[in-house]
Amino acid sequence: MKMGIIGATGYGGLELIRLLSSHGQVSDIQLFTSSEEGVLLSSKYPHLTKLYDQPLEAITKEAIAALDVVFFGTPSGVSGQLIPRIYNEKTKFIDLSGDLRLKSQQAYEQWYKKTAAPQELINKSVYGLCGWNDVAIEKAQVIANPGCYPTATLLSLLPLLASELVEHKGIIVDAKSGVSGSGNKPTQMTHFTETTEATTIYKMNAHQHIPEIEQAIKAYTGHVEPITFSTHLVPMIRGIITTSYVQVKENIKLEQLQQCFQEAYASDPFIRFIENADKFSTNQVRGTNFCDITINLDERTNRLTVVAVIDNLVKGAAGQAIQNMNKMMGFEEQEGLKQVPMFI
Amino acid sequence: MKMGIIGATGYGGLELIRLLSSHGQVSDIQLFTSSEEGVLLSSKYPHLTKLYDQPLEAITKEAIAALDVVFFGTPSGVSGQLIPRIYNEKTKFIDLSGDLRLKSQQAYEQWYKKTAAPQELINKSVYGLCGWNDVAIEKAQVIANPGCYPTATLLSLLPLLASELVEHKGIIVDAKSGVSGSGNKPTQMTHFTETTEATTIYKMNAHQHIPEIEQAIKAYTGHVEPITFSTHLVPMIRGIITTSYVQVKENIKLEQLQQCFQEAYASDPFIRFIENADKFSTNQVRGTNFCDITINLDERTNRLTVVAVIDNLVKGAAGQAIQNMNKMMGFEEQEGLKQVPMFI
Amino acid sequence: MKMGIIGATGYGGLELIRLLSSHGQVSDIQLFTSSEEGVLLSSKYPHLTKLYDQPLEAITKEAIAALDVVFFGTPSGVSGQLIPRIYNEKTKFIDLSGDLRLKSQQAYEQWYKKTAAPQELINKSVYGLCGWNDVAIEKAQVIANPGCYPTATLLSLLPLLASELVEHKGIIVDAKSGVSGSGNKPTQMTHFTETTEATTIYKMNAHQHIPEIEQAIKAYTGHVEPITFSTHLVPMIRGIITTSYVQVKENIKLEQLQQCFQEAYASDPFIRFIENADKFSTNQVRGTNFCDITINLDERTNRLTVVAVIDNLVKGAAGQAIQNMNKMMGFEEQEGLKQVPMFI
Amino acid sequence: MKMGIIGATGYGGLELIRLLSSHGQVSDIQLFTSSEEGVLLSSKYPHLTKLYDQPLEAITKEAIAALDVVFFGTPSGVSGQLIPRIYNEKTKFIDLSGDLRLKSQQAYEQWYKKTAAPQELINKSVYGLCGWNDVAIEKAQVIANPGCYPTATLLSLLPLLASELVEHKGIIVDAKSGVSGSGNKPTQMTHFTETTEATTIYKMNAHQHIPEIEQAIKAYTGHVEPITFSTHLVPMIRGIITTSYVQVKENIKLEQLQQCFQEAYASDPFIRFIENADKFSTNQVRGTNFCDITINLDERTNRLTVVAVIDNLVKGAAGQAIQNMNKMMGFEEQEGLKQVPMFI
Repeated sequence: MKMGIIGATGYGGLELIRLLSSHGQVSDIQLFTSSEEGVLLSSKYPHLTKLYDQPLEAITKEAIAALDVVFFGTPSGVSGQLIPRIYNEKTKFIDLSGDLRLKSQQAYEQWYKKTAAPQELINKSVYGLCGWNDVAIEKAQVIANPGCYPTATLLSLLPLLASELVEHKGIIVDAKSGVSGSGNKPTQMTHFTETTEATTIYKMNAHQHIPEIEQAIKAYTGHVEPITFSTHLVPMIRGIITTSYVQVKENIKLEQLQQCFQEAYASDPFIRFIENADKFSTNQVRGTNFCDITINLDERTNRLTVVAVIDNLVKGAAGQAIQNMNKMMGFEEQEGLKQVPMFI
Repeated sequence: MKMGIIGATGYGGLELIRLLSSHGQVSDIQLFTSSEEGVLLSSKYPHLTKLYDQPLEAITKEAIAALDVVFFGTPSGVSGQLIPRIYNEKTKFIDLSGDLRLKSQQAYEQWYKKTAAPQELINKSVYGLCGWNDVAIEKAQVIANPGCYPTATLLSLLPLLASELVEHKGIIVDAKSGVSGSGNKPTQMTHFTETTEATTIYKMNAHQHIPEIEQAIKAYTGHVEPITFSTHLVPMIRGIITTSYVQVKENIKLEQLQQCFQEAYASDPFIRFIENADKFSTNQVRGTNFCDITINLDERTNRLTVVAVIDNLVKGAAGQAIQNMNKMMGFEEQEGLKQVPMFI
Repeated sequence: MKMGIIGATGYGGLELIRLLSSHGQVSDIQLFTSSEEGVLLSSKYPHLTKLYDQPLEAITKEAIAALDVVFFGTPSGVSGQLIPRIYNEKTKFIDLSGDLRLKSQQAYEQWYKKTAAPQELINKSVYGLCGWNDVAIEKAQVIANPGCYPTATLLSLLPLLASELVEHKGIIVDAKSGVSGSGNKPTQMTHFTETTEATTIYKMNAHQHIPEIEQAIKAYTGHVEPITFSTHLVPMIRGIITTSYVQVKENIKLEQLQQCFQEAYASDPFIRFIENADKFSTNQVRGTNFCDITINLDERTNRLTVVAVIDNLVKGAAGQAIQNMNKMMGFEEQEGLKQVPMFI
Repeated sequence: MKMGIIGATGYGGLELIRLLSSHGQVSDIQLFTSSEEGVLLSSKYPHLTKLYDQPLEAITKEAIAALDVVFFGTPSGVSGQLIPRIYNEKTKFIDLSGDLRLKSQQAYEQWYKKTAAPQELINKSVYGLCGWNDVAIEKAQVIANPGCYPTATLLSLLPLLASELVEHKGIIVDAKSGVSGSGNKPTQMTHFTETTEATTIYKMNAHQHIPEIEQAIKAYTGHVEPITFSTHLVPMIRGIITTSYVQVKENIKLEQLQQCFQEAYASDPFIRFIENADKFSTNQVRGTNFCDITINLDERTNRLTVVAVIDNLVKGAAGQAIQNMNKMMGFEEQEGLKQVPMFI
């Protein structure tokens, strides 16, 4: 199979390269760029020396047509405009950016402050939340790969909401992310000196992942109320932990809540529900496609704390993208994603 | 003035030494230990070479009686038993541990899993939340210095609750702390390798600071409902950020909420209310006694996000202890606490 | 093939599990312990949940005899005493500790301050420095896997010394290591709070890897002079960088030095010589069995700076151990070791 | 006294503000900028809220003439051109950049790749290495404040070289620095994600501090040989550790070497010689003007390891600048520099 990566120099692209290199069905990976044609990727990233010494290629409709699958690791605002110009019916398109996730162009433009993709392309795109949209994913030609925060949030809340064990109203999600989520472009906020001894709250009540989460709650549980969603930057490279607070309905017992998760994810190869956790950390999934989930019921308030951890670059980006590819192409679901977590 | 520190080898003790060394009224600091008598503090902590080369002294009633103020930087379970044995009416006692904070012995034993201090000592102790209990602090002989998490939580929630702009019901506090809050004893949870690329949730719905926060809300606003309170360990040395979620009462506008904070803390030298914050970080108060607060109102849910940042070792421990001493002894409130934050 | 790991709970053991899980020839991994029989490894290390939920087994001669290969991830002082008690002629033994590396019992006891292994066992052990001792490795039954510092130091100095382009006299090696090299036992020196904003020099002129390096220089170049070797702890999990200083012989040009490396390692799948490096970092090999090397000649002093980077847990421990196994068992050399570096 | 800081938004400027705020002789600090006139410093750096809310001022000859002392925290290439345009005989000028350190314009242009300052200004400038040039410093009107690496290197090598206990020939200095030394401008090399799990060697044999160190060795010991000097970036904010290797002359004993340091720095308030150090860390001087030094003699090679640690922003920049000001103005040497190290 021939794969292509557009935006190979970003962190999503780098992670796709890392994971695809262990994928048994991938014979060839082509790396595309809109601005650095001819540059050797290994000259920018010395860790790829002798592994990916090939030059970055220009994006053309013909080059894309020769591929089985093309991934977009581009910043928001790119793929929505680019895909219509290079589209063909034979190649599968998997977009890691936020351009194709929101069904409403207006919502996209409000939250992203950029021009939305054509409505036709949006309509054709399938939201690639593995485990919750698999029938559509298997038949899709264009995948809108979920955001990192939404993946952790949705995987840990949807079972409870879909089974009506908790209230839709009053959901609060307090999320913390490692710095790689901000991408490879140096900024004051990601400057080592100002980041490494700091935890920072940012984009208060304004993060573009809010409408994505709400849209998916509506789609997969039939109903949604506005959520409160906060994002924090913590001084580590990888990892997201979402701590969500939901109100448990009357007369629901802890055992029912635990059983809900066990049933929902019994056959999922990447979601691990852990019943009793003294402590629960992002490094227990580092470098892998796992999403670990635990819950804790406070009997004083009947409020449930729901915690999920993922690696934002894997389950929150490149890993789920490959999982989507596996579903679309009929490969084994775990192919390329069998790593043991790099706990240390 | 002669000061003493019991538990000088812990991080609270080290921080007291650091701050007291710039205090204009302190002529002499004696360092006490229960187990390492005669050891030079600088042999354990080379940063104190030529500054505090004196040997650690044994704790005796006579030695304590010669002091104006004695601070306890001991772990929970020590001061509550020790103070009755070395008590005198002339010396001021300031306890940085949790032993004297909870008015109910039963609550202490339930949350701390240790033997409570004598009720008489508890009754004599004044909760040293500067800005909210100053009249009592000024006359106190024994201070129960507030915990790190409660300090950030209470300073940022009490103005809203006391002025009845927000609901008492349904308060959620999501707190994140640097690792120094866990003290100087090496454990698996504070082992560099397992900590530095991890964010960890721990003690879910079971942290001993929960009853302390609720007791203070009751004391200073006249009413309390059970809160939900979560704690996370993030890979930095110092700093706490509390992100709290409260429901705003009907017809309350953002301007009223902002004004509430500005009025509450207009004359406080250490609390800075920041109206509009793009981002808000623990490092803006690092090394100092400041507590910075900001708020953000989500009009979609009428829920308010209230954020506070402190240095857990200063405003959350040694700094507030010195502020309490200044109030008790009639010194200028900022004496010894005038540092500019070590942003980098 | 059936593999066993003794000392599975240490970081060497964890890393063997991580790497062996992608090894095509490994069907079964048994985990042994001397003290925690019956404990689930995943209960200590949640990242292994659903991957290695099996209980730790007791070490018996019979259990070992059923294995094709057994790895020792134990601290120094264990394998040297244990192997004689469980030895059999059929199983291959690969020791990641320092117990079997030094040919002189007296040197071992002087530098390690522990009882040496029996001389017979030492004699039977083959030093597993891949690329420099391959004939012996392929026929070995017992491998003394090289230390982390010696691996980086030797791979980067041996080509120059063996080809007599530089002086044996006056070699200085300044090494810096991430904290995982200190193992999984919490200590003051690896306590997050005291480690994360510190670079520390330790064991000055007394590190037990000094005699190992000198022994190997003698073995593979025919001559040795005492080296100066310093070790520093830097606040990162993984990675070693060795900066070595050697005197270039007269009339030797930079091109000859570069060619020396290119020839020495032309066919080595894991050693990458990088000719011109603006900067050179440990993260360009993170998580992999690569050793990257670069050099810089100072014409003002005719002194050569030789820099090597490895992942101390992979090329410096578990990775090279598996490479040794591959050589001993006739597997493809890269099997289980094909990861792309986790640059971020 | 009225102080001014030009380049107040850089890390040197921020650190000057932090330290000068506790200086008893400083009544007023004015902040100057060439490009951000009118901007509030606290709007860029929230940690200065309510402390330095004043606007940045334009640099004029008149404004400078009203000051007693003006500090330059500007990048190299600025002060050498700017000072001639704003010079007056009454104000003291202290330049933290490298512009005035090298006596040879040619050397400056070769190593810095920028236009040198006028020779007249260079001649007037006094190298501010406290402890080694004090007579000239006290009478100086313009100070070239030493670089961070040179300060640690020189303070730890000059006593040995001046007393002729070690060879001038063959000196090797292996230096490691925290990231704040790279300044406040975000770059790929200081981007958190690529920095925090990496140790990096950079500018091999090409660092602009090499000629500065050699010039000072010549000036204060009468002789110099080319040194080898390497620089590494380690993932911490503050701190430099220099590990230097020198050849001890024949028949010199360890005790003589130790005594050399004790005598050289007996009366220096900021230099601490520590005789026996198991381990030796940058955090033992963090946030302060201390330079700690230790040595270790390897009897196998008669080579001496000389280790120095400083805080690069304090003793390596702003702190030594204030120490120079104290000497020039006749203030107490420790004024503004009495902080206890922030070990944690």
